[in-house]
Amino acid sequence: MADQDQLFQFLLRLGDNTLVLGHRVSEWCGHSPVLEEDIALANTALDMIGQTQLWLGLAGEVEGKGRSADDLAFLRDVWDFRNVLLVELPNGDFGRTLMRQFLYDAWSQIMLSKLASSSDDRIAAIAEKASKEVAYHVERSGDTVIGLGDGTEESHTRMQAALDYLWPYVGEMFQSDEVDGAMVAAGIAPDPTSLREEYDAKVQSVMSEATLTIPGSKYAHKGGRTGYMHTEHLGHMLCSMQWLQRAYPGASW
Amino acid sequence: MADQDQLFQFLLRLGDNTLVLGHRVSEWCGHSPVLEEDIALANTALDMIGQTQLWLGLAGEVEGKGRSADDLAFLRDVWDFRNVLLVELPNGDFGRTLMRQFLYDAWSQIMLSKLASSSDDRIAAIAEKASKEVAYHVERSGDTVIGLGDGTEESHTRMQAALDYLWPYVGEMFQSDEVDGAMVAAGIAPDPTSLREEYDAKVQSVMSEATLTIPGSKYAHKGGRTGYMHTEHLGHMLCSMQWLQRAYPGASW
Repeated sequence: MADQDQLFQFLLRLGDNTLVLGHRVSEWCGHSPVLEEDIALANTALDMIGQTQLWLGLAGEVEGKGRSADDLAFLRDVWDFRNVLLVELPNGDFGRTLMRQFLYDAWSQIMLSKLASSSDDRIAAIAEKASKEVAYHVERSGDTVIGLGDGTEESHTRMQAALDYLWPYVGEMFQSDEVDGAMVAAGIAPDPTSLREEYDAKVQSVMSEATLTIPGSKYAHKGGRTGYMHTEHLGHMLCSMQWLQRAYPGASW
Repeated sequence: MADQDQLFQFLLRLGDNTLVLGHRVSEWCGHSPVLEEDIALANTALDMIGQTQLWLGLAGEVEGKGRSADDLAFLRDVWDFRNVLLVELPNGDFGRTLMRQFLYDAWSQIMLSKLASSSDDRIAAIAEKASKEVAYHVERSGDTVIGLGDGTEESHTRMQAALDYLWPYVGEMFQSDEVDGAMVAAGIAPDPTSLREEYDAKVQSVMSEATLTIPGSKYAHKGGRTGYMHTEHLGHMLCSMQWLQRAYPGASW
């Protein structure tokens, strides 16, 4: 049985990743280059918000203070968010959004496959459900990275720039601390560090096909998942995301 | 003695103009092309927020419901704002920001000179004080429009584009409705329509020196000062501007 505070932190990390990335992806709604991509991105965003409801719903349950998934999503300030920095970065162009999506999806797919055999049945059930969605996400984002990377000179240049920009944010997904240690000890979750090899193989295979070069530096921006720091972008995003609940407390449909 | 509801509306129009434009200008803080411009813009923003405190402070007094200038600035939603659309438009590049500033300053200077002899002593006093600041603003923004308009090919092109973009928002400042009619009848304020000739002469003189061409169309976007509609930009701006008071109600320094 894991310490409930640590389990709460662990669940926030999962739920905040999907919440923040889901919101970012939703920002494309109505702005995508073609209709099919617009719908695909909106669906991806919806899946991620759906996963958020499950992760943050469980987080609130574990915390035991009566906070719902909505409370956690809309009434925390930036310093209480536990997502990795990668997911809060601005969308940039369509290529960068899809590159970020692939880099996240590839991690998510591996993490969820391990969580599906979590000692905590609630977590295993959420992971099982989410895995099916993420299998589609990673196929789609990976195919798009390949299509645009191995596309025109313009699209190739943009995708390489996206990879160069985002790569320093990948390492944080594989950082490990005492919260992770407690999850490992309780059989709840794998050590993030242990997922790196499989991740690198997957990413390398897609980037090779996309004719893109993974930067050599292993330097990693970090601080999001521990709550030590976020980029300036998250606060601006929360201004929009939380506006309605902040301006009209307790408003419901 | 004017109807107090109409006087309240009239004061909101003045105070929301300076609030919204002041906030927009403040967005340049730390981002201007050179240090002197950065400081100049921050000072302009401060002046406008200072005028806002006076206009909205008086508005709250006239309304008689105990709302302070801060309450009116930070706790109204977009549909209660009464600024002209011109001031809520995004900054765009430095040239567009200064063009917008000049087009507003020129109107403001004329309006304040009339309000300085308002039958309402409180309004006359605010106008008197604000006039001194606005005299500097219009000199500075006018000089910048001339410098950039009659500058390089690049700066000329950008300034002409800014004028073309902003011109359809100028007409709203000279619209007149029953609130204005009531102010005229009570000797509080001039009919906005009556300011147009002096304004056009001033603007034409600066644009000629700036080698810029005023668009021929008199079409005017409107709805902001009557509260009929705002552009989509105002809501986004309020998300940031009101964040602190919305997230931490009643917070003070």
